[in-house]
Amino acid sequence: FQSLNALCGVCFVSVQIPCVTTAHRGEYTCKVFNLYHEVWSSTATVTIGPSSVTDASWVEVDRGLATDKVALLIGNMNYIYHTQLCAPISDVHELTNLLRQLDFKVVSLLDLNWQEMHSAVTEFLLLLDKGVYGLLYFAGHGYENYGNSFMVPIDAPVSYTSEHCLCVQNILTKMQEKKTGLNVFLLDMCRKRNPHDDVIVQPGLLKVTANIVFGYATCVDAEAYEVKREDVSNGIFISFLKRRVCEDEKVTVMLDRVAEDMGRCVITRGRQALELRSNLSERRSLTDRIQVSQCSASSSARNLQWAIAHVLPESRYLQFDCGVKVQLGFAAEFSNVMVIYTRILDKPDEIVSCSAQLTDFPEDVDIDLKKSNQESLLEAGCLLLIKEELPSPEAHSLYTHIRSLQRLKRELTFTICLHYTYSNMDEEVQERQQVTVGKPLVSKLNLHEPRAAHVSSASSSFSLDSFNVPGCSSFGEDLSLTGTASNTWSHHAQSASVSFTGGSPTSPRSANVPEETDSPEILDNPRPLVASKSLPHSKVNDSNYKFSDMYNFHSY
Amino acid sequence: FQSLNALCGVCFVSVQIPCVTTAHRGEYTCKVFNLYHEVWSSTATVTIGPSSVTDASWVEVDRGLATDKVALLIGNMNYIYHTQLCAPISDVHELTNLLRQLDFKVVSLLDLNWQEMHSAVTEFLLLLDKGVYGLLYFAGHGYENYGNSFMVPIDAPVSYTSEHCLCVQNILTKMQEKKTGLNVFLLDMCRKRNPHDDVIVQPGLLKVTANIVFGYATCVDAEAYEVKREDVSNGIFISFLKRRVCEDEKVTVMLDRVAEDMGRCVITRGRQALELRSNLSERRSLTDRIQVSQCSASSSARNLQWAIAHVLPESRYLQFDCGVKVQLGFAAEFSNVMVIYTRILDKPDEIVSCSAQLTDFPEDVDIDLKKSNQESLLEAGCLLLIKEELPSPEAHSLYTHIRSLQRLKRELTFTICLHYTYSNMDEEVQERQQVTVGKPLVSKLNLHEPRAAHVSSASSSFSLDSFNVPGCSSFGEDLSLTGTASNTWSHHAQSASVSFTGGSPTSPRSANVPEETDSPEILDNPRPLVASKSLPHSKVNDSNYKFSDMYNFHSY
Repeated sequence: FQSLNALCGVCFVSVQIPCVTTAHRGEYTCKVFNLYHEVWSSTATVTIGPSSVTDASWVEVDRGLATDKVALLIGNMNYIYHTQLCAPISDVHELTNLLRQLDFKVVSLLDLNWQEMHSAVTEFLLLLDKGVYGLLYFAGHGYENYGNSFMVPIDAPVSYTSEHCLCVQNILTKMQEKKTGLNVFLLDMCRKRNPHDDVIVQPGLLKVTANIVFGYATCVDAEAYEVKREDVSNGIFISFLKRRVCEDEKVTVMLDRVAEDMGRCVITRGRQALELRSNLSERRSLTDRIQVSQCSASSSARNLQWAIAHVLPESRYLQFDCGVKVQLGFAAEFSNVMVIYTRILDKPDEIVSCSAQLTDFPEDVDIDLKKSNQESLLEAGCLLLIKEELPSPEAHSLYTHIRSLQRLKRELTFTICLHYTYSNMDEEVQERQQVTVGKPLVSKLNLHEPRAAHVSSASSSFSLDSFNVPGCSSFGEDLSLTGTASNTWSHHAQSASVSFTGGSPTSPRSANVPEETDSPEILDNPRPLVASKSLPHSKVNDSNYKFSDMYNFHSY
Repeated sequence: FQSLNALCGVCFVSVQIPCVTTAHRGEYTCKVFNLYHEVWSSTATVTIGPSSVTDASWVEVDRGLATDKVALLIGNMNYIYHTQLCAPISDVHELTNLLRQLDFKVVSLLDLNWQEMHSAVTEFLLLLDKGVYGLLYFAGHGYENYGNSFMVPIDAPVSYTSEHCLCVQNILTKMQEKKTGLNVFLLDMCRKRNPHDDVIVQPGLLKVTANIVFGYATCVDAEAYEVKREDVSNGIFISFLKRRVCEDEKVTVMLDRVAEDMGRCVITRGRQALELRSNLSERRSLTDRIQVSQCSASSSARNLQWAIAHVLPESRYLQFDCGVKVQLGFAAEFSNVMVIYTRILDKPDEIVSCSAQLTDFPEDVDIDLKKSNQESLLEAGCLLLIKEELPSPEAHSLYTHIRSLQRLKRELTFTICLHYTYSNMDEEVQERQQVTVGKPLVSKLNLHEPRAAHVSSASSSFSLDSFNVPGCSSFGEDLSLTGTASNTWSHHAQSASVSFTGGSPTSPRSANVPEETDSPEILDNPRPLVASKSLPHSKVNDSNYKFSDMYNFHSY
């Protein structure tokens, strides 16, 4: 089911649930999807109660229900004044894929400065509401002073202090004001003291909401590690977390198991160990279903806001005077990282060679000009997207990788320069067209702009004012006016439907836990820190690593 | 099996283990015990392996093994300058009983000042060694500043700061130096900020030992509550903890379940919620067995040291000139709280009335003279011991309750004043005898004396020097020279034997989890916060409480 081809055939999906509880009641539909398309099967209704189970072994399970699930993932790597990191790109990518399978609305951002981190968190807070599950993941430099955790933006000066960083506990107090149903923080960073920082930050008093879970990649006073390797690989924390994060267990139980897994890893022993901190009293899981709410303004605004941050420009076709027809396509790697590709769709017979190259990009976005217009995604600097995820992957394309879209201040404008040669001429001819593709992905949110430090109004007001939500019923149509949402959020049948791709024999609780469906080739690549699929609980193969190869998350 | 009578009869104990794993391999013996006696059955050896189980459903379980298990429990109630608390006495008592059933060596102390707390912690640290499970429980006033937890002694001044208190994180760093196998802190106290304290305590750097578990009775910035009632009752934390603490699960899993139980309690909702903090990677449980070590000096010293802190004076018989024979008996309520009782064993016929009263106690121990020589334990101020726990409970006795034994500087000396009347005389006659009973219970440890702030030498050196351990084999005899150990530590067959008192139908994992056997009458008394035994997971009956009745653990 992991490629688009499945859409054309007939699928038989079988789900086996070893221990049936009332938690398994509900509507089941099957979703087949990739980045561009999704298809839903017709719905099967499963009723479970004392009468439907023959023996008396069924139990009533009180499960959490989310009003929505929202996640902000930030990975900082390219620090200006500090050690650059390698793993956050694949860590954020991995977790994005997994959380989307759990129906989280995910914004994933790479390399943010202070202003952008601050704005991203503010946007995140705007989307939280009563009963919403909020999850914040940060991979990058960090420190912990006097019990408070600080995330370091890429523009932090050499001797940074709390004023250059974001305090996690401050974000938590603001999340509590939204009456969230669950607050999860996954902090993949150092926790050593910052000796340059003598300021004692005192966040607002925390309320006893009994729904806060911290998963720290490492212990107090200790460092978090990534493994320095040639290719793209996960840091230690995500290497272990990714094998458990979709388990249908209370978040604390899941994280405690990750701690056990990490404890079996010889190279990190005595250096890094997961710390779990929780006051979560209810049995809430990341896999909890989203309860369909009435068509409220706040929930539709929430959907729209996140959708807007993921709108890609529509693929377009350009006709050049010489008769060449060029397709311009777009794909998202992260919420602030995009690939533009060009393809020659049609050319007159008298033209022998022809390529469509992009140029004249605005200065605010981040493009490595030496790597623009490359014949492969990898050469273009795009490490995680693969061409099989694009439509018609067999077509010859030129790829240009655009990062830091959050810095785009105006609409994205660039020039397509068509280079071609006629069969009877030696000289290359050029023809240019300027195109404007609007504000792609997260650039629409203008994260570069400062915003109110503390927005306590409901999420709906902001979204309604700014984007003039036309009402929940026309939400789908409204979206299609701006472009194609690149993500796989299920806007319909969100509460009752469960997407899955077949039961896994090694995972008895796989019913509600979708296997990885995005970019199967990447995820199935052999990765040394991941146990083989047939032995998901087996020991990590430590021998592929040498500790001397490790770069730690330098914290000061 | 819960009374001494069982010792006389024949017992049939049946244990059912629903899911057999290799963790159930070993020697099984049955212990029947009370405060004074214990009897061990002959041993049954259970071998479990692929060949001994018919189907293929058995699994290899990697369980923790402790080299020893040591617990220090402190309950502070009678604060000199701060709100007095009620629950710590029963909380410490309850947890003492439960941890002893799990084979912990427990020292339980009430009402300690700074010096005594400091000395008690130092003694506790002396007993830790490689692989030992250490547990610290504190019930009393407390606060949390800048991520550090502080326990408040009873002599703390009105505006106390960190210098008047004990920093938990400091104790943790010292425990880590001992290479302990598990470090558990159960902090039953407030975690609000102390505004009087601007000093930032920076404990030594923590090592990544991945074996630290904190169970906080409440969240950051929040208070822990006790319920104000007429009789002796537990605080909120222990009310819930006691129902789970003997579960044969990883400590984190057990505490997470307690958090769930507490979350169902309506009166604490929004006010108090258990916080779990853990970096424990291995699956270690409080129920883990103690691995029998070679007869090492350190383990025998450890045994002796704890035993010494629990030696009661031997019962003695005094002959008075008038012909009356008086028995003097001793019982321990806590490690620093004791009851002395007198009984008239024999009197000449011509004496019509006769009582033996204690008087002239040294000034350093704490005796309420109005409550001395009472006809019942309750009138004597002894809330938790019941006369059925004493030998020959039917005999008429006079009880005197002695607290703060840790302050006793010399041997305990007092006078027995025999008041009697002859049948042919109106006037009462007195006859006096002075007795010296040595240093009972914890007074032997001289906790009132300052000691080195940081003792890094092995536990054996201190104990061997001070007490001249005669070697492991003669340990039992040596003990009997000083008196009778009042506790039920199993000095023999410690590793392989499991004590139990019969399977409970509601607890499938009861095999290794003894039911409460000490003072069954107290523990079986209906207590509103404890669910009924037939429904251990049911909701707590909240209706018996009004929130207005709650006293909180005032923290400043």
